[in-house]
Amino acid sequence: MSSSITEVAVHKINGAHSSSLAQDALAVEEPLEIRLGFEADGQPKQQSISITMRTPGNDFDLAAGFLFTEGIVREAEQIAGIQHCGGQGNVVKVELAAGVSIDFARLQRHFYTSSSCGVCGKTSIEALQANACPSLPQADWQVESAIIHDLPAKLRTAQSIFDSTGGLHAAALFDLTGKLVALREDVGRHNAVDKLIGAQLQSGNLPLHRNLLLVSGRASFELVQKALMAGIPLLAAVGAPSSLAVELANEFGLTLIGFVRDGRFNIYCGTDRMTVVQTRTL
Amino acid sequence: MSSSITEVAVHKINGAHSSSLAQDALAVEEPLEIRLGFEADGQPKQQSISITMRTPGNDFDLAAGFLFTEGIVREAEQIAGIQHCGGQGNVVKVELAAGVSIDFARLQRHFYTSSSCGVCGKTSIEALQANACPSLPQADWQVESAIIHDLPAKLRTAQSIFDSTGGLHAAALFDLTGKLVALREDVGRHNAVDKLIGAQLQSGNLPLHRNLLLVSGRASFELVQKALMAGIPLLAAVGAPSSLAVELANEFGLTLIGFVRDGRFNIYCGTDRMTVVQTRTL
Repeated sequence: MSSSITEVAVHKINGAHSSSLAQDALAVEEPLEIRLGFEADGQPKQQSISITMRTPGNDFDLAAGFLFTEGIVREAEQIAGIQHCGGQGNVVKVELAAGVSIDFARLQRHFYTSSSCGVCGKTSIEALQANACPSLPQADWQVESAIIHDLPAKLRTAQSIFDSTGGLHAAALFDLTGKLVALREDVGRHNAVDKLIGAQLQSGNLPLHRNLLLVSGRASFELVQKALMAGIPLLAAVGAPSSLAVELANEFGLTLIGFVRDGRFNIYCGTDRMTVVQTRTL
Repeated sequence: MSSSITEVAVHKINGAHSSSLAQDALAVEEPLEIRLGFEADGQPKQQSISITMRTPGNDFDLAAGFLFTEGIVREAEQIAGIQHCGGQGNVVKVELAAGVSIDFARLQRHFYTSSSCGVCGKTSIEALQANACPSLPQADWQVESAIIHDLPAKLRTAQSIFDSTGGLHAAALFDLTGKLVALREDVGRHNAVDKLIGAQLQSGNLPLHRNLLLVSGRASFELVQKALMAGIPLLAAVGAPSSLAVELANEFGLTLIGFVRDGRFNIYCGTDRMTVVQTRTL
């Protein structure tokens, strides 16, 4: 069983001249596949119905709650049992009670596809590699910490909608001097990033090898994936990154920065694109 | 074309004795269906590949960015054109350039199903009604504003993981006196709610007609839907609700509260479950 928290080494930047190496706790993010087990024509069958990125822990509750809140099962008695599949912590099988029938055609209509998290049985990162996610160039530029400190204020100034609703995520693209290039907003942070990258794609600007991306919320696996696809070498988030976001950034050589607020930030990987004045080990 | 912001009437509560009616701006949340148009066997075809909840605006950028960041198209030239479908603002069709081929079998493998947002061509709320989302009972209890004010502090105290990572959403269930009943955490707020409801389902406690639900982030359509499925009559969020969250809560008689912080909150609908000392119109 996976843990809900993991620890990573992180460079903590405080103001322009203070930097230290420390351990930082991250929320674990891993895919969970939910399968339904049922009987059809007298034979036991199973069908995968959902893969969602989640924090490990209470997986059986998550599976039961998902089936219930999506209207697939109507009462607890329709579930005969829940178990992890074949020793895999990230696959849960919900066995339906005898006689419970599921309208799979209706499921097809009611569910919708969302962003990729990889093929079942492989890790998400392996799936990305198989999908030919492009490599980033070696670090051929550096930005100073002062540029990173200033990004959130520039984003907020440019956010026309946020001020009035408080309800929108934002993604902003900057050049290497910290000048705002583009901003997009959405209730979903992955949508804000897709809007931003889609506009650049259509303007013929990809790959974005000399740009920085700032997101208003947390940095998930999915956002790192989108930055990589667009060739953006540096992703900064106002909030925390997930474990899988750091793992993926590490694997592909992306500079990942979190908690950019109050004159501080953390570098989770890719320090070679940052000018840090002095580094001392705690 | 839909707007990105909408206005609603809201009861603003400040401390124990101040309440006023005001207009509040909300971020609009609506489903967007992305369809691919292509040629097969000399015939024009189309296939729906994604439905996502988004804020209207820059829809063509969103469609192009989604196709690119998911690896479905590799360059701008593979897109011949993008248009709204038949006057519907929430359906976008991306026409692929001649000769561009898509491996739909691979798409099936790489994409995963997520939560329901309704059948295309119907609104999400109509789809929920068709799906027999249960009705809430008439308001047969009231809570005082002081109980709502205190919920976030109780949630934070109970959050064992949040303090160390800053990266997890939380969902907490309370009884009508404001006593914490259960708490679940996850990188995804919908997962935290599913975990919470799944545990209650398995304990035989549904419907949760005498409980309050608090979520640490924003209140989306999806969270209101999950509260309704579990029969929870009051949903409070530390952040902002979306337009569709308010619309759905209104339709089904759920009490929806947002921005519970710093001794204030907003009631978006369902004031009949709240004891508010005095109401005056601004």
